[in-house]
Amino acid sequence: MTLTKDLGVLRTIPLFAKVDPAKLKLLAFTSERLAYVSGDELFHQGDHGDAAYIILEGEADILVDTPTGTIKVASLGKNDIIGEIAILCDVPRTATVVAHGGLEALRVSKEGFFHLVIQFPQVGIEVMSALASKLHDTTQALTEVRARVNELDEGNGDG
Amino acid sequence: MTLTKDLGVLRTIPLFAKVDPAKLKLLAFTSERLAYVSGDELFHQGDHGDAAYIILEGEADILVDTPTGTIKVASLGKNDIIGEIAILCDVPRTATVVAHGGLEALRVSKEGFFHLVIQFPQVGIEVMSALASKLHDTTQALTEVRARVNELDEGNGDG
Repeated sequence: MTLTKDLGVLRTIPLFAKVDPAKLKLLAFTSERLAYVSGDELFHQGDHGDAAYIILEGEADILVDTPTGTIKVASLGKNDIIGEIAILCDVPRTATVVAHGGLEALRVSKEGFFHLVIQFPQVGIEVMSALASKLHDTTQALTEVRARVNELDEGNGDG
Repeated sequence: MTLTKDLGVLRTIPLFAKVDPAKLKLLAFTSERLAYVSGDELFHQGDHGDAAYIILEGEADILVDTPTGTIKVASLGKNDIIGEIAILCDVPRTATVVAHGGLEALRVSKEGFFHLVIQFPQVGIEVMSALASKLHDTTQALTEVRARVNELDEGNGDG
């Protein structure tokens, strides 16, 4: 993959829409474009987190191991960011990410990510918005499931 | 409250630890220090979000209305950020925040917040880390509650 082609790809990612195209070269040098086939793991729950990923093409399943088995908690697609939690708060990977069909992703190392945000604060705002949006959805889901548990608990109490 | 005193307070907030103290004046001018008594609402679920808050002293309860009643989902304390989701992803307030005892908070307007992050990308990284940490905790809680629902559903099925 030539740098020119990489830059063309980077320009189409909404996360970098507000970055001066001339400066995107920095990212092209600090990121890596990877291809996966269906079933390939981008990373596994419990792994040390050393990079974030942006999906360029395809879909990925987010799987979480629980005491009662593995649950698919989300499905992500083009332009979504994956794996930023582990590099931001130094925790092991909280989920396993698996390619659902063919997948292309941009891998940005932890150091590259922080460098990028310091150089381009607007990218930081986009990442914050994406995190806030995920937190919003997760909090809504948690509230709904907790309400469901309350109902089931009451149901069991009656039975 | 004089600017000098405000700057003294801002310097003690970990979120701003890496900001050049001389530049913190900008924040002192774009933020407001507020005092609440126990039971006062900082904001209410469903409100339009126009500011984020940092707790300077005291504790706040995070309450969410559900079909089966109001649930306390979290308790936040000194140096925690509150209300950043609504200003980052343009959604109504997802929870009600109530002072639990006397509370002092720094209110940063939406515009002030974005200006701050653009001027001081390091603050953006701290906010991202805080968001990622909350997302990590919420995702863990969601996984646990989902596993509990699966157990209860099976229990009901047997009964």
